[in-house]
Amino acid sequence: MERIDIGLVGFGTVGSGVVKALKVHANLLKKKLGVQIHLKKICDVNLRRKRIVQVSPAVLSRNVKEILDDPQIKIVLELIGGIHPAKEIILQALERKKHVVTANKALLADCGEEIFQAAKVNQSQVQFEASVGSGIPIVKALRESLLANRIQSIYGIVNGTSNYILSQMAQMNWDFRQALKIARQKGYAEKNPSLDLKGIDSAHKLVILVALGFGRWITLEQIHIEGITDISLNDITYAQELGYTIKPLAIAKCEQDELELRVQPTLIPHEHLLSSVNGNYNAIYIRGDLIGEQAFYGEGAGQFPTASAVISDIADLVYALQSKVQPVKPCLLYKGNIRRVRQIKEINSCYYIRFMAIDRPGVLAIISGILGQHKISIASVSQKARKRAKIVPIVMMTHEASERSLRLALEKIDRLENIRRKTVAIRVEQL
Amino acid sequence: MERIDIGLVGFGTVGSGVVKALKVHANLLKKKLGVQIHLKKICDVNLRRKRIVQVSPAVLSRNVKEILDDPQIKIVLELIGGIHPAKEIILQALERKKHVVTANKALLADCGEEIFQAAKVNQSQVQFEASVGSGIPIVKALRESLLANRIQSIYGIVNGTSNYILSQMAQMNWDFRQALKIARQKGYAEKNPSLDLKGIDSAHKLVILVALGFGRWITLEQIHIEGITDISLNDITYAQELGYTIKPLAIAKCEQDELELRVQPTLIPHEHLLSSVNGNYNAIYIRGDLIGEQAFYGEGAGQFPTASAVISDIADLVYALQSKVQPVKPCLLYKGNIRRVRQIKEINSCYYIRFMAIDRPGVLAIISGILGQHKISIASVSQKARKRAKIVPIVMMTHEASERSLRLALEKIDRLENIRRKTVAIRVEQL
Repeated sequence: MERIDIGLVGFGTVGSGVVKALKVHANLLKKKLGVQIHLKKICDVNLRRKRIVQVSPAVLSRNVKEILDDPQIKIVLELIGGIHPAKEIILQALERKKHVVTANKALLADCGEEIFQAAKVNQSQVQFEASVGSGIPIVKALRESLLANRIQSIYGIVNGTSNYILSQMAQMNWDFRQALKIARQKGYAEKNPSLDLKGIDSAHKLVILVALGFGRWITLEQIHIEGITDISLNDITYAQELGYTIKPLAIAKCEQDELELRVQPTLIPHEHLLSSVNGNYNAIYIRGDLIGEQAFYGEGAGQFPTASAVISDIADLVYALQSKVQPVKPCLLYKGNIRRVRQIKEINSCYYIRFMAIDRPGVLAIISGILGQHKISIASVSQKARKRAKIVPIVMMTHEASERSLRLALEKIDRLENIRRKTVAIRVEQL
Repeated sequence: MERIDIGLVGFGTVGSGVVKALKVHANLLKKKLGVQIHLKKICDVNLRRKRIVQVSPAVLSRNVKEILDDPQIKIVLELIGGIHPAKEIILQALERKKHVVTANKALLADCGEEIFQAAKVNQSQVQFEASVGSGIPIVKALRESLLANRIQSIYGIVNGTSNYILSQMAQMNWDFRQALKIARQKGYAEKNPSLDLKGIDSAHKLVILVALGFGRWITLEQIHIEGITDISLNDITYAQELGYTIKPLAIAKCEQDELELRVQPTLIPHEHLLSSVNGNYNAIYIRGDLIGEQAFYGEGAGQFPTASAVISDIADLVYALQSKVQPVKPCLLYKGNIRRVRQIKEINSCYYIRFMAIDRPGVLAIISGILGQHKISIASVSQKARKRAKIVPIVMMTHEASERSLRLALEKIDRLENIRRKTVAIRVEQL
């Protein structure tokens, strides 16, 4: 049986998951692939850490050159994360005509185009299924299965930490701080979870989804990013009363060849599938002109779901290695039809708005008057029970309105004497 | 730009969807694939029918030999459905070293092993993404993306007609006949919908899912098949009151290397994702040892979703044609670990049971007594409001019990003088 040698850089949580899965399922993989995957070398800075899987000391090394300079190693797994030295390792592997598997969303978001260009020049491939949605095969779906579709929109719950926190707040009536505490205890939030909570991790994944779905490499700066840290239990509760769930979404919509890109907590109707995606689960909902609607659901993190994706990437490279000519997979550098990316002020949306107003006659009339002047039409309004003396929450749902007008109106309203807190506005997607 | 010639056999609903999609998205596909897909010949018995897309008369033919005998045609699309002559066309195409794309679930369920064996012998490939779940990329997911997993179970809503009817009954309070009537009007049910309603279509798809997930080609006879025709609005309503939705499921579960295979209406908890899959939508829910849980959701029929899948299959074959050596994709003939398939009487399940009993003191005691003798433990019981004089429904949920015991107990109970209709028992999956 043919043997294919691979090298692993990064023997951390994900790396050791891959090693263990390759070991446990060695026979299954042999039967399915008809070749033997042989992990020839594992490189990590820390070789002493306790891991879930035993490997022979001869396989371990601190020196990545033992992988990069070994001509027998055809596939390099980059599972260290971060930009440096992951980028250099990948580029060097490609220069040596090796194929690469990576789970590194931050790196691909930052320099995906450069990396895929390098792969093209060197006639090598970079596989990255685990970079979005972990074991959910969304990369392959967008790249291969849906390739005949003009993608219209992508809505992803792609950050498990944020989704866990918002869904626990909703289900357990916890405030943000308490939900975060439990998320940390359960290992769903890192010690420093700010990349997750501020929406940066979702934005990284959105860059990759947009490249796959719309044929354009965008930058993080082109995405309007709002984290979930300002979402209060009150807003979750009021949204529920209105028939909505607040979900952390990464959104890409194409309208008339223009893209709208946002990472934001969003109100979506209870009936929509995405509103039942709870805990640390991920889901990606896609609209395409042929398929209509599709959704993909699964665990969005964890060493074994990620290992599942990494090994599927290895399998794809095994076929690539067996064919003598470089197969031209749907190109990661194809140019889509997108003319430009809209700025946040150019978009239209429906909004959930919560004002904190002093409970005096006439306040609602003033607020509605200002909204009316800015052509923001109110779909529903309710005044909530008093929480503190005299200051009451007024919750409104608007019809579709321009973000620019809304911002102007809220600026005016927040300067009113009777408004005592910064007004909260959260976008609504009817999906 | 390289051109790849393909031939289409079957210019019906799906075929014309494929032709239209190839035409509309010709540029997109060229950009992504780097080759031009050229539909050289279309064969159908009826060339006069009105279709959604215009093609040059020179492309049309009634003679399939014009496709099979053309050495330039490298890929044959079989979209006529049914066993004959689809099977002969596919086998002849393979003998001529052509690759094949088919959406024909009945054929693959009947002679999949033979067809894939023929493909192997001829070093050709048979692609069949559209055979299960239409545009949902479940075939590729199971075959490629999840290949490193030991699959534990598959639960599929894979028949849109049945799902449409059961979900409309639940949502609109319609009885079966009325839901079927509307399904026909909306084009969700065929004139003769018995293959769909009796579970045969779902069973065909289950055969394919099992081959992909468990490495074993089963026969239809090995599947316990129950259709949805006996599901009454009452049972749907009572199930809802208990927190359950009745869904038409195709189920494959592996326990200790034994398979349980069933197509059946099933009670599943409201909270489970599959219970929100309504209308004619399909979804496949999978448990694997690495991924945990995943679900795939989308339209399960329709010419454009199906075209999306067929074109993704064409794309895969384009890569295969470009690599000079036959790439060994995860084999459709790999031998899984399954030792045997269980018979329905060997399984254990929880059950929803509805008795129709004469409202007399002591009836419940007799029923529970018989269930107790057969070691069937009752989780809950409720007596419903009288519908007709004296005969009342008694609804029970059981704990896990043996199917064999249940059948014996119900046989006894149905012979009681106080029981006036055949007792209804529907299996429950807690998922």
